[in-house]
Amino acid sequence: MKVSIIGVTGYSGLELVRLLHNHPEVEIAGVYGTQNIGKKISKIYPHLSGLLDLPLKAINHSEIMAESDLVFFATPSGVSREVAIQFIENQFPVIDLSGDFRLNSAESYQKWYGKPATHAAYLNQAVYGLADFVSKNSSARLIANPGCYATASILSLAPVVISDLIEPESIIIDAKSGLSGAGKKLSEASHYVEVNDNMSIYKINQHQHIPEIMLQFNQWNTKIPAIQFSTSLIPVTRGIFVTSYAKLKPAVSFEEVESAYQQIYQDKPFIRLMSNNTMPQLKQVIGTNYTDIGLSYNPVTNTLMVVTVIDNLIKGAAGQAIQNLNLLADFDQFSGLDFVPVFP
Amino acid sequence: MKVSIIGVTGYSGLELVRLLHNHPEVEIAGVYGTQNIGKKISKIYPHLSGLLDLPLKAINHSEIMAESDLVFFATPSGVSREVAIQFIENQFPVIDLSGDFRLNSAESYQKWYGKPATHAAYLNQAVYGLADFVSKNSSARLIANPGCYATASILSLAPVVISDLIEPESIIIDAKSGLSGAGKKLSEASHYVEVNDNMSIYKINQHQHIPEIMLQFNQWNTKIPAIQFSTSLIPVTRGIFVTSYAKLKPAVSFEEVESAYQQIYQDKPFIRLMSNNTMPQLKQVIGTNYTDIGLSYNPVTNTLMVVTVIDNLIKGAAGQAIQNLNLLADFDQFSGLDFVPVFP
Amino acid sequence: MKVSIIGVTGYSGLELVRLLHNHPEVEIAGVYGTQNIGKKISKIYPHLSGLLDLPLKAINHSEIMAESDLVFFATPSGVSREVAIQFIENQFPVIDLSGDFRLNSAESYQKWYGKPATHAAYLNQAVYGLADFVSKNSSARLIANPGCYATASILSLAPVVISDLIEPESIIIDAKSGLSGAGKKLSEASHYVEVNDNMSIYKINQHQHIPEIMLQFNQWNTKIPAIQFSTSLIPVTRGIFVTSYAKLKPAVSFEEVESAYQQIYQDKPFIRLMSNNTMPQLKQVIGTNYTDIGLSYNPVTNTLMVVTVIDNLIKGAAGQAIQNLNLLADFDQFSGLDFVPVFP
Amino acid sequence: MKVSIIGVTGYSGLELVRLLHNHPEVEIAGVYGTQNIGKKISKIYPHLSGLLDLPLKAINHSEIMAESDLVFFATPSGVSREVAIQFIENQFPVIDLSGDFRLNSAESYQKWYGKPATHAAYLNQAVYGLADFVSKNSSARLIANPGCYATASILSLAPVVISDLIEPESIIIDAKSGLSGAGKKLSEASHYVEVNDNMSIYKINQHQHIPEIMLQFNQWNTKIPAIQFSTSLIPVTRGIFVTSYAKLKPAVSFEEVESAYQQIYQDKPFIRLMSNNTMPQLKQVIGTNYTDIGLSYNPVTNTLMVVTVIDNLIKGAAGQAIQNLNLLADFDQFSGLDFVPVFP
Repeated sequence: MKVSIIGVTGYSGLELVRLLHNHPEVEIAGVYGTQNIGKKISKIYPHLSGLLDLPLKAINHSEIMAESDLVFFATPSGVSREVAIQFIENQFPVIDLSGDFRLNSAESYQKWYGKPATHAAYLNQAVYGLADFVSKNSSARLIANPGCYATASILSLAPVVISDLIEPESIIIDAKSGLSGAGKKLSEASHYVEVNDNMSIYKINQHQHIPEIMLQFNQWNTKIPAIQFSTSLIPVTRGIFVTSYAKLKPAVSFEEVESAYQQIYQDKPFIRLMSNNTMPQLKQVIGTNYTDIGLSYNPVTNTLMVVTVIDNLIKGAAGQAIQNLNLLADFDQFSGLDFVPVFP
Repeated sequence: MKVSIIGVTGYSGLELVRLLHNHPEVEIAGVYGTQNIGKKISKIYPHLSGLLDLPLKAINHSEIMAESDLVFFATPSGVSREVAIQFIENQFPVIDLSGDFRLNSAESYQKWYGKPATHAAYLNQAVYGLADFVSKNSSARLIANPGCYATASILSLAPVVISDLIEPESIIIDAKSGLSGAGKKLSEASHYVEVNDNMSIYKINQHQHIPEIMLQFNQWNTKIPAIQFSTSLIPVTRGIFVTSYAKLKPAVSFEEVESAYQQIYQDKPFIRLMSNNTMPQLKQVIGTNYTDIGLSYNPVTNTLMVVTVIDNLIKGAAGQAIQNLNLLADFDQFSGLDFVPVFP
Repeated sequence: MKVSIIGVTGYSGLELVRLLHNHPEVEIAGVYGTQNIGKKISKIYPHLSGLLDLPLKAINHSEIMAESDLVFFATPSGVSREVAIQFIENQFPVIDLSGDFRLNSAESYQKWYGKPATHAAYLNQAVYGLADFVSKNSSARLIANPGCYATASILSLAPVVISDLIEPESIIIDAKSGLSGAGKKLSEASHYVEVNDNMSIYKINQHQHIPEIMLQFNQWNTKIPAIQFSTSLIPVTRGIFVTSYAKLKPAVSFEEVESAYQQIYQDKPFIRLMSNNTMPQLKQVIGTNYTDIGLSYNPVTNTLMVVTVIDNLIKGAAGQAIQNLNLLADFDQFSGLDFVPVFP
Repeated sequence: MKVSIIGVTGYSGLELVRLLHNHPEVEIAGVYGTQNIGKKISKIYPHLSGLLDLPLKAINHSEIMAESDLVFFATPSGVSREVAIQFIENQFPVIDLSGDFRLNSAESYQKWYGKPATHAAYLNQAVYGLADFVSKNSSARLIANPGCYATASILSLAPVVISDLIEPESIIIDAKSGLSGAGKKLSEASHYVEVNDNMSIYKINQHQHIPEIMLQFNQWNTKIPAIQFSTSLIPVTRGIFVTSYAKLKPAVSFEEVESAYQQIYQDKPFIRLMSNNTMPQLKQVIGTNYTDIGLSYNPVTNTLMVVTVIDNLIKGAAGQAIQNLNLLADFDQFSGLDFVPVFP
């Protein structure tokens, strides 16, 4: 299978290149961007020297459809809503890592992303690719790959939301992310000197991943009215660490909660439950597509606390995109994703 | 005024040395420890070369009482409960940075610290030195300096606890700390390789600072039954970043909350409220005794979120100890604490 | 004494504010920049809240000369060569932290800085303010504060250069710096994700601090023909760590070298020599104006190795500028510089 | 092929596990240690959960020889000199990642490692496995895997040493390493708080990798009398960054040097030469077995500078060990080593 990557020079694009190098069934046919056209990507990123020496090309829909079988968008939000249309119209498979096709309502996109959505007809064709909950979907043509915070947050609470075990209005999600999540864009907030030895909080209850979390939660459980959601930056390169809180419903025991997690996640090999009240550390998933989850219950305050860790560039972006590709193409689900975490 | 420091080679002890160097009214008379006796402290810590060349001495109560006017304990918990007794019996002023005199009940100390408490008679003589809420107390002889997490957590919610504006059972405190908070003790958890690029959570609802937070909250508001409290390690050297959540009581508006913070903190110069919904970053207090606090309210979930940052070695240890010294000795409250944050 | 600061929002400007806050003889009269005019500096930098609430002003020479007694330029190179002229013409004291007045030749400036120098007449009025080697110079009106790499490199080898103990063509300087040295300018090279867990080398034998090092070395010893000089970035916020190598002249012993360092630095309290072949760590000077130096000699290869550490924002910028101010105004040399290193 | 790993819980042992997971020809038969016997390794290291669930076993020579075809020692120096003997006597293949079999003289081992060497008869059977310079050696039974600093230092200068292009007494090697190089052992020097924002230098001209570098250099060029060699710690987890300096011989041009590097490294796919005077960054090899090398020549000082970067746990330990395994077993040289660097 041949794939093309649009937006290859961003962090998610580079991670697609990195993971696909070890995918036994996939070859990268072309890499596309808007700058440095004609330059070999290994000249821009010397770490790729000898590994991927393709030249950067300007986006050309016909060429991409001729030379490859699927295209990844690893672009910032706002690009694929326009550039993907020609692919969609041609039923050419698209996996979009941006937020442009994740919401089913143009109003919601405008509200949370601050720009106009693509046409509703295209939004409706998109499948939200929360890969661990998706069955083989070889008929899908447009997959909206979930956001990094959304992936960790949804997987953090899915079993209790699905099984209706928590007070619906009690959800608090306190998410922390490393800097690669913010992308390559230069800003004061990503200057080394501002990040090192620092921690900051941003977009409180205003993060654009909130609506996709709510959509998924409500698809499972219509009673959840809203979530409290905040995002912080911690001085690490990769990784999302989500601490979720919720109150158990009356008469629900922690054992029921534990067994809901075990049941719902038992056939999902990329999700690993910690045993015996231990909690995951961020580093134990870095470099992989794993989601590690730990549970703790405080009977005094009747509070369930769930700690969830992922590598934002893999499970939160390129890895889940490949997981979606594997589902689409009916490849083994570990193809291109069979790695041991980089520890230490 | 002359002071002695017991436990000078730990991080809090070193920070006392650093801050007292700029205190116009205080001179360090002697430094005490259990190792390297007779060796100059500047030989162990070359950063002190030319600044403090005193030799380390073995603890000698008579000598300390003869040569100085007050003694700081910058020792791990478990030391002052025994070693301080002779000073207490002699009415010699003690400021204890450890947890040994913070709880008023021997049972509680045994439960949370896992070792026997000192005699209840001594516990009762101790004053909990939450310095921003203490008036000049020249008669105090034994001051229990608050814990780092406790200081940030209590100051985070004091106004709404005092003014009874929140649902008493709704408090969730999600605290993150840098590594210096764990002290100099060697452990796998403090090895650079385990901490760098990592984040981990520990002592969930079991941290020994919980009882002192509850004592203070209940002194202000007897209705608070319990708190949900977790502590995480982030890869920074200094700093505590506390995110607190609580539900507002029915009919309480966010404006009332804001005005409670303004009123209660207006005469406390070491507490700085952020304006206009902005939130503090960790680094903006490092190197100082400041506590910076930001507020955010989500009307959809009726959740108040408070972000509080301190330097754990200063406001959370040595700085608050000097603030307590200034109160005790009736010095200007900024003496030894008049610094601009180290930014960047 | 009243001072103004031009370029206050850069890292060196902020550090001037920080240090001058504790200077007993100096008051900041005005702060000047090119952006955010009219806005209080504490609104841009919340760490200054309650500490310096002056508004940013657009540069106005008459106002500065009227309201203050001296002006600091904490601007990038290329600014003071033009903006300082009016002060120079008026004999108004200027301490320039940029490179614009450090070289005595316009050709050299053009070559190393890649832009035209100011008029030679102004270059000639400038005094190179290597503060530890300067005597009280109350008559100076234009002080060119040395570069950060230059300060560490020159102090690293001054005694053997002055005493002519090394082979003149054998000097190799391998310098490493933290990221604050590169300033606030946004670039890919200063993005957190590019710096964290990384080390890179740049401007090999092309760094603009080379000519000022050579000027100073040749003023002491005309035989030095050139130096090998490289600069690397390491993932720390502050600090310069310089490793210098040189071959001893025939018949010169290491004891002679040691005694040259002791003699030449014995009356310079900001320079601390390590004892007994121990070497300084970077962190032992951070937050201070100290230069710590360690010596090692390898008889097998006849190589002297000198390790020198400074805080680039203090000794390498704002601190040395204040040291120059103290010399100029005949203040105590520790005024505004009397700090214990921030360790840990 | 089945292999066993002795010392699996150290950083090099864990890295062997990580890399071998993706080796198509190798299976891990058993993992051995001295602590936690009987416990599953995934209980000690949760990142291995679901990936390697073998129990830790106490060392048992017969069992190892029965169940596997080769044994790796990933132990600290001082272990294999005794524990490997039984394997050697049985002609059972050993790849030793420690320093115990790297030196050909017992006196030298005693001098540099400070403990007695194994019997000279065993030392003589060992092959120094500098893998890029070794041909397929299916007859070797005892391979001494090179040290991390040694690998980077030797590869840094091999072409000019082999081709005799530099002044033999002019070599200076300034090496910097991340903290994983020091291993898991707890010490003040590896405490996060001592490492973060710091840089320090240690073992100047006393590092135990010096003799193996000299042995290899002298095997190629008997004229090299000694090297100046220092090692520093920088705050990163993985990576070695070596800056080497040497003077060119009279009449040798930089072009000759460049062509020596190109010729000697052209058939070594794990060594990548940077083009056009660009220099490698540390991060561009992390996660891989690559050695990236950049060259710079300063005609004014006649100094060649070479910058070499490796991942100390891979090329400097586990990766080179697998490269040696591939040579021994005649596997494809990229087996288990076919990764794209983890960037960012």
